[in-house]
Amino acid sequence: MKSTAILTKEEFLQHWLGHRNLTRNTIEKFPEKELFEFSIGGMRTFANLVKELLSIAEPGLRGIVERATEPYDHALNLNTKAELLAQWDADTPKIIELYNQIPEEDFHKTHNLFGEYNFPIYSNLLYFVDNEIHHRGQGFVYLRILGIEPPFFWERD
Amino acid sequence: MKSTAILTKEEFLQHWLGHRNLTRNTIEKFPEKELFEFSIGGMRTFANLVKELLSIAEPGLRGIVERATEPYDHALNLNTKAELLAQWDADTPKIIELYNQIPEEDFHKTHNLFGEYNFPIYSNLLYFVDNEIHHRGQGFVYLRILGIEPPFFWERD
Repeated sequence: MKSTAILTKEEFLQHWLGHRNLTRNTIEKFPEKELFEFSIGGMRTFANLVKELLSIAEPGLRGIVERATEPYDHALNLNTKAELLAQWDADTPKIIELYNQIPEEDFHKTHNLFGEYNFPIYSNLLYFVDNEIHHRGQGFVYLRILGIEPPFFWERD
Repeated sequence: MKSTAILTKEEFLQHWLGHRNLTRNTIEKFPEKELFEFSIGGMRTFANLVKELLSIAEPGLRGIVERATEPYDHALNLNTKAELLAQWDADTPKIIELYNQIPEEDFHKTHNLFGEYNFPIYSNLLYFVDNEIHHRGQGFVYLRILGIEPPFFWERD
């Protein structure tokens, strides 16, 4: 449907990339040990939450572009902060490249994400970002409990 | 700019309203006392986080529609769970009505939100939703620490 865009394709990408910067900065704030060992209330460690994010963003987007429906795998073999950050940084240019391959006309087509979530592509993409904000917000609480100041929520550079 | 919308104005509203349902369900899960008294790591109580959300959503949107730039006031006089929920429910139809008054053409116009955040309207609106997801994610941690199962993140009814 042609209309006046409330949000362009490029603006949504920049919005997502800004959130990725903030999440990266949040990972950086964690001490190595607490990143992989600290948790509370029976929740996952922040490293495991980040692995979930990594297993969704690039693989999910690749699935959308290739119309593939393989399940996700959260159990990534990343065992240090440096490895998590390296994977994060390796994925960002791939995300940009993959995202740019999705024509605007396709955002309302349905894709069965990971063979499990059959929704319009725009909805899949919003979910990626929402889920990242959600788990990063939890990481902010972990940092506060550890006595560490989280990054500013509005800082996206 | 006319183009094929990746996300229509109505879809963004529905996305926001879905998040509002989830946040409402999250407030519901808190016991009265812990809603107003529990916090950790020097953070605010979930009631105070919810008051922030209430002081942003409807007042911020009203500011956008009326091009008003009064500052926000997070210190709302809401002292019980029932009062928080009543305010939440009173604001939802107002949010729908105000949102529907913003023409698509205006989403890229700049508005000085609360006299402090001078950004395009689409960016202000994304911030409202992001901030709600962020603080609600923190509420999920509070619930887990209290031994209470949060709502499902993907459940938006």
